[in-house]
Amino acid sequence: MKVKVGISNHHLHLTDEDYKILFGEHKLTKRNDLNQPGQFACQERVTIIGPKSSIENVIIVGPTRNYTQVEVSKTDCYKLGIDAPVRDSGDLEGASVVTIIGPNGKIEKPCAIIANRHIHVDKTILNEKKLVGVKEVSVKINGLKSGIINNVHLKETENAYFEIHLDTDDANAFLLQNGDEVEII
Amino acid sequence: MKVKVGISNHHLHLTDEDYKILFGEHKLTKRNDLNQPGQFACQERVTIIGPKSSIENVIIVGPTRNYTQVEVSKTDCYKLGIDAPVRDSGDLEGASVVTIIGPNGKIEKPCAIIANRHIHVDKTILNEKKLVGVKEVSVKINGLKSGIINNVHLKETENAYFEIHLDTDDANAFLLQNGDEVEII
Repeated sequence: MKVKVGISNHHLHLTDEDYKILFGEHKLTKRNDLNQPGQFACQERVTIIGPKSSIENVIIVGPTRNYTQVEVSKTDCYKLGIDAPVRDSGDLEGASVVTIIGPNGKIEKPCAIIANRHIHVDKTILNEKKLVGVKEVSVKINGLKSGIINNVHLKETENAYFEIHLDTDDANAFLLQNGDEVEII
Repeated sequence: MKVKVGISNHHLHLTDEDYKILFGEHKLTKRNDLNQPGQFACQERVTIIGPKSSIENVIIVGPTRNYTQVEVSKTDCYKLGIDAPVRDSGDLEGASVVTIIGPNGKIEKPCAIIANRHIHVDKTILNEKKLVGVKEVSVKINGLKSGIINNVHLKETENAYFEIHLDTDDANAFLLQNGDEVEII
């Protein structure tokens, strides 16, 4: 069965408290909605600093969360000089320490992870696609640099948009672009 | 059967003529030998410029060739603003135009490619591993972000060191490091 690809470049989620530290009293400013209902890319940008170097213009994905989390690729990790663990979103065990710089202030905390490959699903999709009870799938990718990726977690949320989220390393290794279709096997 | 991983970061090969343009009358200066017999990383560095941005400190792999070729990853392509084709080394059909800057001069030519995934072999290895006549294999990669990559070309040279060469996108997507072992299937 086919699923559309959404590529996640490095980005972060913020708590209300951390947002206030970085941006003062302002509220997250939506730039555009994302495919997942309720999720949006913000106008605001931050700089992420690691022991080796920094990444500028990192986008915030709203709404605010009850955790602050920076999602990076392995390529970003080498650039920053960190060794972030592979985690499901929201699981910050062993997350790497980075500094987040906003126009109003900065935060330093263990919050950087490499997000697990995942597919957004809801109960309707799980039933339709006969994936009830499945935790993880493999996905076949065609093209000039083709292959199979494993460890793709099914992430259940309400009213999900059926989509596989891959980081830029996975996408670029297989020459994938946003909206391409890959096959769950 | 297992094969060791060698990760190729962006690098370039130069003709004698282009080397002279970039560096004047000097000769390639070896920094260290590479695993493939006769191949070496040089002290010299160049800057590669594309329509969007540039990459500094790009290493030259010697000895000089009868073609000038810049090998980049898809991630590098996005950075540079080029759409380099996937090619075997030495096949520059449709290669992207980039500018190469050295201390003594610059070159602008269509020479940038994404190198095909490949395994270095020689006749002895092909016989030993029962791979005679095989052009392409798939390789299984274990780990937290595991999977299979296809389109891995067998590249026959004399006295080869048995090794799979992957670009940084492939390596980082699968969390591979130099010297890791993967399995030909």
